[in-house]
Amino acid sequence: MVSRRPLNTENPAGSFSRQLEHPNSSTKFSGRLPVALSVNSASAMMMGDDVENGNLGPYQDRPRTFPNMRSKTYTPLIFRILMGINVRVLVILLLLGFGYVFYVGASTSPIIVFVFSVCIVSFLLSIYLTKWVLSKDEGPPEMAQISEAIRDGAEGFFRTQYGTISKMAFLLALVIFAIYLFRSTTPQQESSGLGRATSAYITVAAFLLGALCSGVAGYVGMWVSVRANVRVSSAARRSAREALQVAVRAGGFSALVVVGMAVIGIAILYSTFYVWLGVGSPGSMKVTDLPLLLVGYGFGASFVALFAQLGGGIYTKAADVGADLVGKVEQGIPEDDPRNPAVIADLVGDNVGDCAARGADLFESIAAEIISAMILGGTMAQRCKIEDPSGFILFPLVVHSFDLVVSSIGILSIRSTRDSGVKSAIEDPMTILEKGYSVTIILAVLTFAGSTRWLLYTEQAPSAWLNFALCGLVGIITAYIFVRITKYYTDYKHEPVRTLALSSSTGHGTNIIAGVSLGLESTALPVLVISVSIISAFWLGHTSGLVDETGSPNGGLFGTAVATMGMLSTAAYILTMDMFGPIADNAGGIVEMSQQPESVREITDVLDAVGNTTKATTKGFAIGSAALASFLLFSAYMDEVASFANESFKQVDIAIPEVFIGGLLGSMLIFLFSAWACSAVGRTAQEVVKEVRRQFIERPGIMEYKEKPDYSRCVAIVASASLREMIKPGALAIISPIVVGFVFRVLGHYTGHPLLGAKVVAALLMFATVSGILMALFLNTAGGAWDNAKKFIETGALGGKGSDAHKAAVTGDTVGDPFKDTAGPSLHVLIKMLATITLVMAPVFL
Amino acid sequence: MVSRRPLNTENPAGSFSRQLEHPNSSTKFSGRLPVALSVNSASAMMMGDDVENGNLGPYQDRPRTFPNMRSKTYTPLIFRILMGINVRVLVILLLLGFGYVFYVGASTSPIIVFVFSVCIVSFLLSIYLTKWVLSKDEGPPEMAQISEAIRDGAEGFFRTQYGTISKMAFLLALVIFAIYLFRSTTPQQESSGLGRATSAYITVAAFLLGALCSGVAGYVGMWVSVRANVRVSSAARRSAREALQVAVRAGGFSALVVVGMAVIGIAILYSTFYVWLGVGSPGSMKVTDLPLLLVGYGFGASFVALFAQLGGGIYTKAADVGADLVGKVEQGIPEDDPRNPAVIADLVGDNVGDCAARGADLFESIAAEIISAMILGGTMAQRCKIEDPSGFILFPLVVHSFDLVVSSIGILSIRSTRDSGVKSAIEDPMTILEKGYSVTIILAVLTFAGSTRWLLYTEQAPSAWLNFALCGLVGIITAYIFVRITKYYTDYKHEPVRTLALSSSTGHGTNIIAGVSLGLESTALPVLVISVSIISAFWLGHTSGLVDETGSPNGGLFGTAVATMGMLSTAAYILTMDMFGPIADNAGGIVEMSQQPESVREITDVLDAVGNTTKATTKGFAIGSAALASFLLFSAYMDEVASFANESFKQVDIAIPEVFIGGLLGSMLIFLFSAWACSAVGRTAQEVVKEVRRQFIERPGIMEYKEKPDYSRCVAIVASASLREMIKPGALAIISPIVVGFVFRVLGHYTGHPLLGAKVVAALLMFATVSGILMALFLNTAGGAWDNAKKFIETGALGGKGSDAHKAAVTGDTVGDPFKDTAGPSLHVLIKMLATITLVMAPVFL
Repeated sequence: MVSRRPLNTENPAGSFSRQLEHPNSSTKFSGRLPVALSVNSASAMMMGDDVENGNLGPYQDRPRTFPNMRSKTYTPLIFRILMGINVRVLVILLLLGFGYVFYVGASTSPIIVFVFSVCIVSFLLSIYLTKWVLSKDEGPPEMAQISEAIRDGAEGFFRTQYGTISKMAFLLALVIFAIYLFRSTTPQQESSGLGRATSAYITVAAFLLGALCSGVAGYVGMWVSVRANVRVSSAARRSAREALQVAVRAGGFSALVVVGMAVIGIAILYSTFYVWLGVGSPGSMKVTDLPLLLVGYGFGASFVALFAQLGGGIYTKAADVGADLVGKVEQGIPEDDPRNPAVIADLVGDNVGDCAARGADLFESIAAEIISAMILGGTMAQRCKIEDPSGFILFPLVVHSFDLVVSSIGILSIRSTRDSGVKSAIEDPMTILEKGYSVTIILAVLTFAGSTRWLLYTEQAPSAWLNFALCGLVGIITAYIFVRITKYYTDYKHEPVRTLALSSSTGHGTNIIAGVSLGLESTALPVLVISVSIISAFWLGHTSGLVDETGSPNGGLFGTAVATMGMLSTAAYILTMDMFGPIADNAGGIVEMSQQPESVREITDVLDAVGNTTKATTKGFAIGSAALASFLLFSAYMDEVASFANESFKQVDIAIPEVFIGGLLGSMLIFLFSAWACSAVGRTAQEVVKEVRRQFIERPGIMEYKEKPDYSRCVAIVASASLREMIKPGALAIISPIVVGFVFRVLGHYTGHPLLGAKVVAALLMFATVSGILMALFLNTAGGAWDNAKKFIETGALGGKGSDAHKAAVTGDTVGDPFKDTAGPSLHVLIKMLATITLVMAPVFL
Repeated sequence: MVSRRPLNTENPAGSFSRQLEHPNSSTKFSGRLPVALSVNSASAMMMGDDVENGNLGPYQDRPRTFPNMRSKTYTPLIFRILMGINVRVLVILLLLGFGYVFYVGASTSPIIVFVFSVCIVSFLLSIYLTKWVLSKDEGPPEMAQISEAIRDGAEGFFRTQYGTISKMAFLLALVIFAIYLFRSTTPQQESSGLGRATSAYITVAAFLLGALCSGVAGYVGMWVSVRANVRVSSAARRSAREALQVAVRAGGFSALVVVGMAVIGIAILYSTFYVWLGVGSPGSMKVTDLPLLLVGYGFGASFVALFAQLGGGIYTKAADVGADLVGKVEQGIPEDDPRNPAVIADLVGDNVGDCAARGADLFESIAAEIISAMILGGTMAQRCKIEDPSGFILFPLVVHSFDLVVSSIGILSIRSTRDSGVKSAIEDPMTILEKGYSVTIILAVLTFAGSTRWLLYTEQAPSAWLNFALCGLVGIITAYIFVRITKYYTDYKHEPVRTLALSSSTGHGTNIIAGVSLGLESTALPVLVISVSIISAFWLGHTSGLVDETGSPNGGLFGTAVATMGMLSTAAYILTMDMFGPIADNAGGIVEMSQQPESVREITDVLDAVGNTTKATTKGFAIGSAALASFLLFSAYMDEVASFANESFKQVDIAIPEVFIGGLLGSMLIFLFSAWACSAVGRTAQEVVKEVRRQFIERPGIMEYKEKPDYSRCVAIVASASLREMIKPGALAIISPIVVGFVFRVLGHYTGHPLLGAKVVAALLMFATVSGILMALFLNTAGGAWDNAKKFIETGALGGKGSDAHKAAVTGDTVGDPFKDTAGPSLHVLIKMLATITLVMAPVFL
């Protein structure tokens, strides 16, 4: 392992010099007392005079070893084009898009036209937000230089990472194509003349589009974050409100793009297939079967999201842990000190781990949830013989269109408060964000109720829409409670984190035991909430009055789907708050590294603290929606299997030994995946530790600011190691359901047990979902609680910084890092990826 | 919490003075270099001259605060009688027992006569073993004194703990009685005239007998261990072989009693019910329904085992962690130094945590597995219309009778090797134990095959017995592979623990991350093995040729049951090896504390090391058998529900939202239970830390051996805290399945969904089993690996003792303690307790 990394090549370097070079003036470290205000933030400490003057010492001009980061020529063509054209050209392109939209929209459904229009408007708004953010100044040169180093590292990693991912995606596309060419077609497909080849093309095209859009979502998240960070820093020199506004608008830009792209991608696929396949005309495909063709899109999105989250998560935490272990623990220099060779890698990690990965994650959540809800809506409409099923099928798209509208209002509302007075220098940004959230959520409730009345009203069951509106309310309330529970367990204002901090005072061991217990315990309440909300939404749907031919109620699952949509009905605003976190974090880092006055640091510190809170709570939101979405996806899976196997598939009976074994394997998969994700961070961090130790030994001048550390080498090491390490857990997640399904299909074939493969995979999926939710809750909460227990001690409690309790708390924080930022979020994605892979790969199991 | 413990009472003390008092000679600590040989062992370190002379300084004669430990008058009547009578009286009593046996045996089945005879012979053998062990000398007075202090602490805790448990058991018995009085009877019961009252009496009697036997099993384990430890120490002064033999025979005694009692208890209940209810005569109960009446016995056993394991596990690890945190980490004195006030509590913990609890655990495993296999055998025999079903029903009893025979031979074979020569002073005891195991396992394979031919031969399917013999072989092989896998992940001869040790060199944080990853990863292979063995045993049974009326194969589940029996077919020998561990561990502690010569210490060290290995591997065995046994217990549960509800109950369909929720709650239960078990240890350890710190501050003479620490106070604190802390997780485990079942029964009633409660509970059970197996594997393996990583570093690797890597490894070991000795083993019991509670409480859900 170790020998494979490019340590032996003794000539790294290059383009960083452009950004970080300065006149040499190697004076001694003037030694002001370092005050770390937030350890997780990228905030650098106060340094010597030379650093205050923006001088980071001589820079070794050696060629770097990480080839893909060497120059800008690797920027994907599409981004070069997009970035090259000006607004007028863009507007013309968009008008052409409008033309296409109105053509297919008019041929499909007026609802699609509405969805397209909203998405295009929100893209225009997002362009306005970018222009607005980019028009802000980048501050003094020392800020811009640090920011450029971060940008270069992040974009370099992104290009290499997505290069690897895209190769794997193409490979997988070929596999899918081959499988679909040899699959049996469903009776519906046969009746509609949809041959094997067409079906294969459709699935592969949807898969690749999903993967592409997910990649773009990730890129957009990172692109704006590496540009906004320095602008937030710069704005913080002027006013707190302006800094907040820049960060929120930058986050809002990527949120609108991510959500809008998920919606418009599905809408385009849907209407294109609709027109192409002549859906609705006699003898061809029924509209209720159309959503099943979209599953490839969801799988493509989750495939990319999984690797993005794994790679980014490993990157950010390996750099963080590695930098801390040598810098803070061994050398005793503050966190994010410019003398630490891994400091830039750490700052880069925030962008690739938090911004890019979370963008891809939320994109995938929304796409998977829309598709599964469309499938369930279609199935239900068909069973209940609803005359115009398009309302039920397109409902999720409309919900997210309104999501874009209300979230935009929420984002823009933050601007308007700015004019209302300059009462204090730093008003609590959390209050401002929460005010915006209140606006968004109130509007969301109203528009949600309106959407249900508009689309889900049917004469067969006149009050059904009201039941579904209540389901939506259940979802919104569930989201709210989830956020509260996460806060209770991770905020040091509450009992659990205080107890954890107290247990640090008896040592490293008791701190870890207490943190593990806290994390395990924190799974209980969310599970109870999810249970209650699934059951109540199911019963609201069940009693909605929608009945099938035999008169038995049929709306239960769709009720759950509506609740999930309710939960995600403010997704764009939630994503904005989530993106806000790492941008503020990075801005803080830049402010500290460039030695701005105390007042500026204060502003970014407050923003950073708020960002930490929003990051933690949106994780609770993400896992809650993943739980609900996965529950929908099984049902979609069972519908799909039934439709392909042309026999009823309504039961997953775990009293059958093989099915039970499938469940056992599913839960095991979660444990093994978490193990590999955590150990990947551990191994990569050890590589960083060795490199940083080496630099300190070989260049003793670093500690006296006489020599500049080789930042790019650490960046290169972390990047290549995390790319290598993301493969194993990712491959496990993709290959194991396919292998298990295939093995049991063969076993079932020889033992006269039809559908055995499909049943075993269903059990695998359900057990993996349950274990995955619990494990993710455990990992996220334990990690967050350890982080905040440390922060609580840093406020001066239990001896404060430097005390033994603080050292124990730092150990807890280190352990929590891969839990909450690598394994935990990867599990969110894994859960949904498993559901979509089983949908797409169903032919293998049948 | 803290204020409730008896810290404020300033007058502890008492009976320890009798044991530990010595002439005062307060010389200085002569300061030999401490060498810790095994941190988990109770081995005390070398001390000053005064301690070598057996002088532990002045002892404060203060009344103790823990009332129930004050005197011997709390010894339960039954033990006083048993210990008072001599062998002749015992023989007469046993002959009377024989009379009863032959009466009911002759009225029931010759198989029962065989089972009774074997059990009685093995009880006679176990009495011989005790007499043999007790005839050994207790060594010099300083040894006997330490041993008596341990014995007093252990027996005091045992009495109080079992006092609490018995109160809870009686309360629960009343609840069960009330439930059964108001339950509906099954059609079988009605046809056989078995009224509600009779059914209630039977269940409650079985429950109380199971609870009593489990208590006796635990007591026997601890009773012999606190007596054998000092005799092993004393024997070690003479020869290694003798010491080994004493430890093995002491372990063998309790193993034979535990297994024999499980078998004879069930056999007595079975034959008594058989005779009483007139089974087999026309118009009365069928013999195939009889095993269902025994479930109370299994529940009683698992109820007691759960609290025994929780209380004992919390005790042993809280004392261990608490003693280490102040003694080793803060004061820098070696582990088990007599100056540490918590050292006796730590040694007591080994007996109550390992011996008593593991005895109850294995007793419960065997009882639950026998009962579930009997139920399945009966059901299958009935379905397949086998003429004489008693062979299928009584097969498990015969397997364990042979288990007693072959294990006895194995245990005694260790004696015979003693004569074969004195080639080296210390021959590897592991080799000797493994030789004994080989003898046992070969005999077990032969007797198992013989039993299948004897009991499972039926003319309907002449080759069925061969298939079942192969099932047994599958079980034996599974057990073997499980033991190998556990060894691979926890032994420092192999890669995983070495990697873990290496990660300690970069700090506490990376050590914990690596250990957690290792533990999570280690779940994969055992799950694959269990999967393969369940499926192959199922298919061997399925293809055995046993068919029901419709001609469809029906032997699958019974095949799995036979595999489980195969796995447990050497249980008595396995339990012997398991009991051997803590006895050797304690013996080492006594040898070290009483300052025996180097050569004696060497012998006990080797025994201790072997004990650690056998303890770790038997945990793998325990979890493997728990997994298989639980799988049987669901089937028994489903059979029972079907029989009471008088409708088919063959499916647990997790596609029904409520059933899925049941599964989610089941998995959550495991996480919450583990959380509470771990945090109980953490909290109790903190109380110990405070008390030990207080003693060091208030009695500065302790450190110079001028004052004797107040051991009894630590014992009292740990005892009362662990009794308090065991209630919460225990109550959770018992109450939650009942509440969930009842709530969903009511919900099902109002939504027109019959059997909903029973189905939800079934899903809860299955998901809890799967999560429980994985969680227990994770906790046990991570704990064992951390322990051995530390031991590996103590061999001198990576800087050896006192290095930074060692400190990090000690942190890992501390974290691992509650994982592997509290939460992990409690989960084994929990899994089976859940299965038996659902069986007994089924009327609540229906």
